[in-house]
Order: sequence, then C-alpha cells, then structure tokens
Amino acid sequence: MLGRLNHVGVATASIERSAECYRMLFGDAAVGEPFDLPAQGVRVCFVDAPNTQIELIEPLGADSPIHGFLAKNPAGGQHHLCYEVPDIHAAKSWFEGKGMRVLGEPRIGAHGTPIFFVHPKDMGGVLTEIMESPRGEH
Amino acid sequence: MLGRLNHVGVATASIERSAECYRMLFGDAAVGEPFDLPAQGVRVCFVDAPNTQIELIEPLGADSPIHGFLAKNPAGGQHHLCYEVPDIHAAKSWFEGKGMRVLGEPRIGAHGTPIFFVHPKDMGGVLTEIMESPRGEH
Repeated sequence: MLGRLNHVGVATASIERSAECYRMLFGDAAVGEPFDLPAQGVRVCFVDAPNTQIELIEPLGADSPIHGFLAKNPAGGQHHLCYEVPDIHAAKSWFEGKGMRVLGEPRIGAHGTPIFFVHPKDMGGVLTEIMESPRGEH
Repeated sequence: MLGRLNHVGVATASIERSAECYRMLFGDAAVGEPFDLPAQGVRVCFVDAPNTQIELIEPLGADSPIHGFLAKNPAGGQHHLCYEVPDIHAAKSWFEGKGMRVLGEPRIGAHGTPIFFVHPKDMGGVLTEIMESPRGEH
C-alpha cells in the first residue's frame, strides 16, 4: 500500500542553526533553500540524504502547529514520517476503510503534490504524512 | 560524511501489534521475524519500506532503555534515526572532533555491524545511531 519514505520531518526552533549541522553531516550541496508554507504554519528546508530526505520544520506564525511540539521538545526532534503513494484519493479511502483517522482533506504539501496526515494514535504513535508521488517519478 | 538512512527506529509496547499494522501498510513479506538483542535490552523487528527500513523496538527486560521512552510516549513513536558510514571508528573520531557526544564505544548492532549512538542534544533533539554499512553493501 505505502511506497518509499519520502522524508523524515524534524522540528527545530531554528532552521538556520539546524541547517548548519546538516551541512556538516551531508555536505553543503545536500541542504536546500528554506521556504515558507503559510497555509500550514511552517517554514521548511529539505536536506538530501542518499536515499531519502530530512524535512526541517520551524514554526511560522503564532498559530503554527509546531509550537506545541517544541514546547514539549525544546531541543527539537522527530515530528513525522512521510510515505509516498501513487494516488492520494485512493490512499485516503484505503486508510478510512481501515478505520484510521485521516486529518482533513488532501491539500498541497511542501513538494507541490497533495498530502494528508494520519492520526498518530492509529499509527503506533507516529504522526504520518501521506504524499502523492511527484508526476514522472516512481 | 553520513551515508544512507538505514532505518527509522520506532518504539512500541508490542511488536506483535505494530507488526500487524505494518503488514497491512507494506505487505506481509515486508515484515521480518522479531529477534532479541539482550545486550541492548530490546527486542526488534525490521520492516522493509522500498528505500529504507523501520525498526520496531520493544522493551526487553526490566532495565530496557525503552521503558522510559514508552512511559513518556505510551502509544509508542519515533525513537531514533540510523545512518550508515563506511568506517565506524573513523566516524567516532569525526563526531568527537566536532565536539559531539558519542554514547559509549562501538558495539555490534541489530544488523551485525558496529554501531554507536550520538547524544540527541548534539543532533537537534534526534537520538542518532551511526552504523557501519554491511560488507559488500552500501
């Protein structure tokens, strides 16, 4: 049902500071330019590991959903896992058919394709993002 | 410096129950046989995603380091990230040279190659396992 692990979402109070660490770990070229996703209340930055990506996530705005996570985890930490699927609507029906809670309607995510989240309580405590694979890939 | 993401470690109170969920998500053949790692106080089970693995980790014994994590996260959740390196001793020197805290000496990990952990406070809140790539792979 699920495809490749597109990325691991890692929350941070400062993308700038985290990016410095990831440049050291994976090289300058691996760390992309940060950009804002105002609709989701986050600023993000993708880091290329050889077989997947790390998505650094910083709160954007007072209502950012990341504030609560950072209040509990001031040093930052793993926030979610994102898996690819070929068809976001088929995936939504599949999860709902299994009785798992899909959080809201599919919307455009950080990679420009539709995404939704599945409730962590239905995924062994792991907040899980489901993302339609970019066209032409996979 | 770091290579591929070998696995995402996910803590669970019950590998049996989690494995059921992952069989549904990735297919029966993707979920391996659980096995004990008494030296590390954990029972583990690897799940194959197309480009990486999920390592399910259950406490083994009263002194398991996973008890504390599950006390804070009763539903389970993301516990660590594991990256591959070609040479574990070179990696240890590299982290120490950057002033990052390596937790103990390299020891044999779940994949039969040497591993160590880096303190989460030095890795943006992410408990990080460094693992020597299996010979012939990479």
